[in-house]
Amino acid sequence: MITRTENLPNGASLSWPEILESLPFNTDGLLPAIAQQYDSGEVLMLAWMNRAAILETLSTGRVCYWSRSRQSLWRKGETSGHHQYLKELRIDCDGDTLLLLVDQLGPACHTRRSSCFYNAVRSDRVVVISAPLPP
Amino acid sequence: MITRTENLPNGASLSWPEILESLPFNTDGLLPAIAQQYDSGEVLMLAWMNRAAILETLSTGRVCYWSRSRQSLWRKGETSGHHQYLKELRIDCDGDTLLLLVDQLGPACHTRRSSCFYNAVRSDRVVVISAPLPP
Repeated sequence: MITRTENLPNGASLSWPEILESLPFNTDGLLPAIAQQYDSGEVLMLAWMNRAAILETLSTGRVCYWSRSRQSLWRKGETSGHHQYLKELRIDCDGDTLLLLVDQLGPACHTRRSSCFYNAVRSDRVVVISAPLPP
Repeated sequence: MITRTENLPNGASLSWPEILESLPFNTDGLLPAIAQQYDSGEVLMLAWMNRAAILETLSTGRVCYWSRSRQSLWRKGETSGHHQYLKELRIDCDGDTLLLLVDQLGPACHTRRSSCFYNAVRSDRVVVISAPLPP
């Protein structure tokens, strides 16, 4: 159903509850979700959301993922305090990926780096391109 | 093995060929890859790469994905001409997601929008927030 927006003009809209029910969750009931810092544009991390995580994120304004390793809802920042405040949830053209524009409190990465993408492939080396934020 | 970079200082490096062999590809041999426009920071799309797609992308400098629907290598822009030129390939802290900094020629999305993420959830509606680029 999300593909029905493809030919709509800028500003047109469809029902979110109806689109949510038709999103193509994978066989584990999950969609990948990219978190991007809303003002700087920095891509922070990728994690996974199920239907419950999406609904909780929208209702609380704090990002909640599904932890595949723990098989439970993962309220980002629950233990670290490094919450992600949702600015906007976006959906791609075929509905199988989410983009979360967020305001990240502290580092997004468990290594205390601002982003999880701190490894860069440069010729035959993988180079660390950022340092952990100070405590 | 990629997790060994976690405690390395900024600028330190490890062998890319060795890290490539140890990346945690999923059961289909794939990793999700986020494409981001290198200068504007716009998140363009998410697609999937296998080992061969990664190696081809790095050797040619043009992004090549794995098409899950066609079950074949997908050289982005092959039919549309909308190539993605690779600026840098990054790997996240646990090695299960790639971030491609690219220079996108023309629109990234098959709808001719610059990004695939043109659907925004706003209260109970999904709103189209961009228009196709002119031909």
